[in-house]
Amino acid sequence: MPNVEMLTNGQFQAVYNVLSLALAAMGATTVFLLAAMGRVLPRYRIAVVVSAMVCLIAAYHYFRIFNSFSEAYEAVGAGTVGIASEYQLVVGEGFNEGYRYVDWLLTVPLLLFETIAVLALPAAVRSSLLWKLIPASALMIILGYPGEVTAEIAPKAIWGALSTIPFIYILYVLFVELSKAAKTQPNQVGKDLAGLRWLLLATWGVYPISYMFPMFGLDGADAFVWRQVGYSLADVLAKCLFGLLIYKIAREKSAVDSAEFAESEMKAAPSSA
Amino acid sequence: MPNVEMLTNGQFQAVYNVLSLALAAMGATTVFLLAAMGRVLPRYRIAVVVSAMVCLIAAYHYFRIFNSFSEAYEAVGAGTVGIASEYQLVVGEGFNEGYRYVDWLLTVPLLLFETIAVLALPAAVRSSLLWKLIPASALMIILGYPGEVTAEIAPKAIWGALSTIPFIYILYVLFVELSKAAKTQPNQVGKDLAGLRWLLLATWGVYPISYMFPMFGLDGADAFVWRQVGYSLADVLAKCLFGLLIYKIAREKSAVDSAEFAESEMKAAPSSA
Repeated sequence: MPNVEMLTNGQFQAVYNVLSLALAAMGATTVFLLAAMGRVLPRYRIAVVVSAMVCLIAAYHYFRIFNSFSEAYEAVGAGTVGIASEYQLVVGEGFNEGYRYVDWLLTVPLLLFETIAVLALPAAVRSSLLWKLIPASALMIILGYPGEVTAEIAPKAIWGALSTIPFIYILYVLFVELSKAAKTQPNQVGKDLAGLRWLLLATWGVYPISYMFPMFGLDGADAFVWRQVGYSLADVLAKCLFGLLIYKIAREKSAVDSAEFAESEMKAAPSSA
Repeated sequence: MPNVEMLTNGQFQAVYNVLSLALAAMGATTVFLLAAMGRVLPRYRIAVVVSAMVCLIAAYHYFRIFNSFSEAYEAVGAGTVGIASEYQLVVGEGFNEGYRYVDWLLTVPLLLFETIAVLALPAAVRSSLLWKLIPASALMIILGYPGEVTAEIAPKAIWGALSTIPFIYILYVLFVELSKAAKTQPNQVGKDLAGLRWLLLATWGVYPISYMFPMFGLDGADAFVWRQVGYSLADVLAKCLFGLLIYKIAREKSAVDSAEFAESEMKAAPSSA
């Protein structure tokens, strides 16, 4: 998608601050998950480490995106001193959005992996689910890319439609096949798993909506700002909040698996009884 | 709020040094809390990790604020060689205060979370308190932002008043509802909890006072310096000192819960007896 040439001061600040917020949230969640990993039973730690890696990869990409954005525009116009009235695209490399696709190509399969890993399903079931989900997610990202970089409507619509096929398949696996496999999970875990899937559906839904903006003629500065804010907040929810929910499920399953764990990690202090 | 155009050498140095002080304090407290986390019982470690994350997020933002400030001004005037007489705002991006709001949006809910988490209350009570405190704190920050960025008095007063409503509600929950829930805490913990709440009230009180400066006509260089110094020192107290108090409570509760912990962690060495 072509860059926008002019942003008002408020538009520039909104994108700048939301990119920084995403970077801070990803970084802090990475450290939190690594530091708190010992607070679940060993069998659930891989799911927590992978959640941390998703946030780490995203923190790296937001660092790059933030730098790319702040170098792509320069303050112009008098305005109040110290508060530029406008920001103009610098002739040169421009704002690189390719980082987002690289990020998704790495993190989306990992997000699906952590979702399955935390359930500690029998090996054969887990393996079968992963063999369906991971290739489909890679295909979904790869097919979306040519449509994102083109400025023309027709190829955008075609690649978008092709990319939707693996997306629908992933939803089928998560909402139908996974439900069968997860029937024997403890009650609270079942509820959290449902929350996880709806969070995934709601946040992943932001991407195709942003993708379709140009098809509805939304391609000015406002649309650019909404797209950046939407992508960034969706990423924070889909990675940080998602990772924290994985951690919550891992804690609950640890407590169900081991009375000793529940006693040492979760019991309200005896004095408050 | 518009930036100040000219700072004396002393004013510039005061802001520069206090921002660096806050960065150092936040960074060191993060590392201390992570390194010392093992010195409390497992059930209190989440509260300590979250306290570390608050300081980590704040360290990141102070790094950005420090860079933004030092790039926003340049030394002008002859003065003594090597000591500029004045600092002038560079025409360009200016000093970005948006970082502070982004920081509060992330850290204030986490501060309330750590306050509740360290008490190890029964799950239902904890959950009920968090569902009241966290949305209220997000609302408080979000409603304050439009008032902070405007230069006009009337909208500033209105957004400020709206933001005060969730603040009062948070105080009600902390001072009334939490008191009931924490009645059964050990004696020393009760005292520490009272200290925690007063620290919170005293430090959070700095923000609305700084916010109201322009409404009293305080908008020159001195007011700018006082605002930055006030915000920074309030942040150090509200995050570093607050986090260390959380750690102290976690230690005390650990000692009450487990005689073995008290023996191994807190008993004076035999030789000093």
